[in-house]
Amino acid sequence: MEVSLAQIRAETGEALNPGCPTREVLDHITSKWGMLVLLGLTEGKRRWSDLRRDVTGISEKMLASTLRTLENDGLVVRHVHPQVPPRVDYDLTDLGRDLMKRMLPLVLWVAQHATEIVDHASRSDPSAQSTGYR
Amino acid sequence: MEVSLAQIRAETGEALNPGCPTREVLDHITSKWGMLVLLGLTEGKRRWSDLRRDVTGISEKMLASTLRTLENDGLVVRHVHPQVPPRVDYDLTDLGRDLMKRMLPLVLWVAQHATEIVDHASRSDPSAQSTGYR
Repeated sequence: MEVSLAQIRAETGEALNPGCPTREVLDHITSKWGMLVLLGLTEGKRRWSDLRRDVTGISEKMLASTLRTLENDGLVVRHVHPQVPPRVDYDLTDLGRDLMKRMLPLVLWVAQHATEIVDHASRSDPSAQSTGYR
Repeated sequence: MEVSLAQIRAETGEALNPGCPTREVLDHITSKWGMLVLLGLTEGKRRWSDLRRDVTGISEKMLASTLRTLENDGLVVRHVHPQVPPRVDYDLTDLGRDLMKRMLPLVLWVAQHATEIVDHASRSDPSAQSTGYR
């Protein structure tokens, strides 16, 4: 699919200004933990402990807050099974699954080119590596 | 293109662990300003003042730092024209253009669904709007 910036501007009716919904949602789903939690759910339902393990480095607090936000957005759904102790699963909604169809090709491209990009950055600016490549 | 998480794991050889190149580059190109500057370059060469205008809200300092990082990564190229006063253009490299082929469909999807998502969030958590939907 070839997409142009003109097409995106036509869809948003504005030039991605601060505070417009597109910029808000972009900031959001591409946040570090938002993206990793969404990736963790692409293969189906996950329990809390699965996500804690799969999304390496996420804290309990950040996982809770990220899941709550994604749930509020309608991208993730939480299923509580009435049993003792209660079992809680998280899953992508249809909207979340649709989003991941666009996000996964981007993540795959990054995975395929990441080493090349990091190597280029180290050659261009040897100090970049020691400062964590930001 | 249907992409699975398994395919991404196979490409990276690791589960997107902290510090792995894929996670570094993802953090990076999906940073708020990184993504907006890349979008600003999708329609061709831009001068500094064009980018300052198009990427609404970016400061001089942040634009300088974002462009320097994208240039170090090999995603953006800087052309200096030897004239008085010197003219400087910024453009995507072939690698940067290839990246945008994957990023634009995601941004288009967000533009098409942003209002729906923000509305859902406001209904789910009325306090979300007043806290800037984070």
